[in-house]
Amino acid sequence: MNNAPIMPKQQAWMERAQALDAQDELAEFRQQFVIEDPDLIYLLANSLGRLPQATATRMAAVVQHEWGERLIRGWNEGWINLPQRVGDQLGRLLGARPGEIIVADSTSVNLFKLVVAALRARPGRTKILTDDLNFPSDLYILQGAKHAAGGEHQLEIIPSPDGIHGPLADLVQAMDENTALVALSHTIFKSGYTYDMAAVTARAHAAGALILWDVSHAAGVVPIDFQQAGADLAVGCTYKYLCGGPGAPAFLYVREAWQNALHNPLSGWMGQDNPFAFDLQYRSAPGIRRFLTGTPAILSLAAIESGLNLVLEAGIARLRRKAERQTAFLIELWAEQLQPVGFTLKSPRPAGMRGAHVTFGHPEAMRISLALKKEMNVIPDFRQPDNLRFAVAPLYTRYTELVDATGRLRHVVENRLYAKQATESPVVT
Amino acid sequence: MNNAPIMPKQQAWMERAQALDAQDELAEFRQQFVIEDPDLIYLLANSLGRLPQATATRMAAVVQHEWGERLIRGWNEGWINLPQRVGDQLGRLLGARPGEIIVADSTSVNLFKLVVAALRARPGRTKILTDDLNFPSDLYILQGAKHAAGGEHQLEIIPSPDGIHGPLADLVQAMDENTALVALSHTIFKSGYTYDMAAVTARAHAAGALILWDVSHAAGVVPIDFQQAGADLAVGCTYKYLCGGPGAPAFLYVREAWQNALHNPLSGWMGQDNPFAFDLQYRSAPGIRRFLTGTPAILSLAAIESGLNLVLEAGIARLRRKAERQTAFLIELWAEQLQPVGFTLKSPRPAGMRGAHVTFGHPEAMRISLALKKEMNVIPDFRQPDNLRFAVAPLYTRYTELVDATGRLRHVVENRLYAKQATESPVVT
Repeated sequence: MNNAPIMPKQQAWMERAQALDAQDELAEFRQQFVIEDPDLIYLLANSLGRLPQATATRMAAVVQHEWGERLIRGWNEGWINLPQRVGDQLGRLLGARPGEIIVADSTSVNLFKLVVAALRARPGRTKILTDDLNFPSDLYILQGAKHAAGGEHQLEIIPSPDGIHGPLADLVQAMDENTALVALSHTIFKSGYTYDMAAVTARAHAAGALILWDVSHAAGVVPIDFQQAGADLAVGCTYKYLCGGPGAPAFLYVREAWQNALHNPLSGWMGQDNPFAFDLQYRSAPGIRRFLTGTPAILSLAAIESGLNLVLEAGIARLRRKAERQTAFLIELWAEQLQPVGFTLKSPRPAGMRGAHVTFGHPEAMRISLALKKEMNVIPDFRQPDNLRFAVAPLYTRYTELVDATGRLRHVVENRLYAKQATESPVVT
Repeated sequence: MNNAPIMPKQQAWMERAQALDAQDELAEFRQQFVIEDPDLIYLLANSLGRLPQATATRMAAVVQHEWGERLIRGWNEGWINLPQRVGDQLGRLLGARPGEIIVADSTSVNLFKLVVAALRARPGRTKILTDDLNFPSDLYILQGAKHAAGGEHQLEIIPSPDGIHGPLADLVQAMDENTALVALSHTIFKSGYTYDMAAVTARAHAAGALILWDVSHAAGVVPIDFQQAGADLAVGCTYKYLCGGPGAPAFLYVREAWQNALHNPLSGWMGQDNPFAFDLQYRSAPGIRRFLTGTPAILSLAAIESGLNLVLEAGIARLRRKAERQTAFLIELWAEQLQPVGFTLKSPRPAGMRGAHVTFGHPEAMRISLALKKEMNVIPDFRQPDNLRFAVAPLYTRYTELVDATGRLRHVVENRLYAKQATESPVVT
């Protein structure tokens, strides 16, 4: 259903896509996911990844057995160590040592913890550097954290030259002896632009600043090696390419050398040296555990492991290779099929500068996105003011879906199907 | 299995308990819970409530249908409003108006938000008052929040006269024109002592201070009416008597009149006026939503509603009546059966001063607790240094279980079954 009429050119694209799917070394992973509607083209892996079959099975066991039957004993039988266990599992993907990552709270809450801790560890330096492509919640947290850290900090938001690429030269130039912290998104949520983590980290360190990376849009599709890059701090979410489930707890990374010098401002009992001694005075736990705060949300936390296992099994090299090929394929499709009907390309052209999503610009992007969802069974997403994002998920996206989605998109535009959509967007776009 | 030999006296207690169970107006609610092992006596409702049958059903639907099938559409189909929807549902239990409670993050994180916001709203006042019976994580957060609020705040921890009762007179005396905030647990985690919320609130207000209540150990078993009591701020968890699941998201209450005067220091996108506009500058949402921070953990959050429905259906008046009767029954059992074998009573005697748990003191409490769990199929809990807590859950605890548990406890002590337990406690006690 919902297929736009197939043009002769479309047929050639489809044949090429079928050949690519047949050669896809990750093709078998698609079967590991719940796919209720095979016609639905889901291009929103960068917002909420699909449900792994194993996660559904695991969740039933966590609810029925671990909670229902084992009750409080669940804490000693695994729950209490889940933040570290899933953190170490993530460490294998992200180039962190065991004990450098924990999973807890939301990305924004974790960012607050690390920014306040970092600013307090850099007294005398007052500048926080970021760019205007950073995810707005990160900018909001930086605004809140600079007050909470004490002292007089200034947040300097370096503008992108074109709304697509990170302002690399201007950022580097702004790093100076007054810079306490550089905080950036590794892969930019709108354009997909991806910083060279090692290079930017080296420049920040040369200026004596700490650096914090938000890898939410990169984890699982961009190779990340915190150790090798020398990253000091990082945060990220688990519900995009890692398929951890809606609002799944986020993670934070603190380089081992920094852990005992930084103090979590959200000093709750799970970060206390001995929470069950119930001392009246807070004393930070040694190591990464001090960055925990309250009791972890076990149901959401337990949902992360199965999807992450699939990512680890596929391996970041293969995931990256497919993501690069699929986004390049999408850009080729754009050049031939979408540019002529008014779409601009709002992602970088070199594959090495991209995450796993491609952004198309169109003045009617919001209504086009609604029409795709409501009438064409394609789920992309819209980002203000004129961005339509297509994300590939190397674990389950097929090349044929990209051809189909492009055809359906073109159909929406050529037939002005968007014109009947409301101009008010729903809450979540 | 595991039943201690039944003594003649025990037989009389059992008959009385059976009669009380037969008259129990809430008896039918027990069937609404998953009870895998009918011999297990679970007295830890004040730590992790049992799994409601309806929650297991709901979770399967959330995972399979809402995530697996609806994918990102789940946000517009209900997820995005869950923090407010569950908050309003809680408001019906806690005497809050719609829009005065949201569910998000952990109790500790929510406490941090409100304490920092409150201290900043009271410039010139530097004292924070609490007591040494408050839950340690609350004390730790107060320690962290006073730094983050800016200014020079002193945390004054008023000691309890006996480790059981709140230091009411000393607290009131310490409230003065320099007091910014009074932060207390409504029901004390160790002893079960429960403050008169309205009376203490009135005294705090008379001194011009704000008051914040942690109702974690009270919600669902102690009648609470935030409006009537005039409470300014409150936090609490949902995984105890409310049966929301392990580490389920917590709630926060902000009196309507205060909402737009307070600012969330954890200024994340979900608390932004228009999160999907992606403005670079944070602007607080009006009302309670400004106290949200990051993306809510949907799986854990969705697990709360079904248990809360049961609490609302039972009604706080009936729940309170049964909790008072069952804790009084436990104290009678203690006087006759436990006091002679060395247990002290570490909870208040007047029912109106208690939550729904009773604490017994014994120098071997830790090993007794382990022996009860490992050998007698009773789950109580131990709290440093010598406290054994028995909590009743009016939704599912039977009087006969209290007689049985007391018999098994006496059996452990009389036969020194605890002597073979390790003196090292497991991580979670």
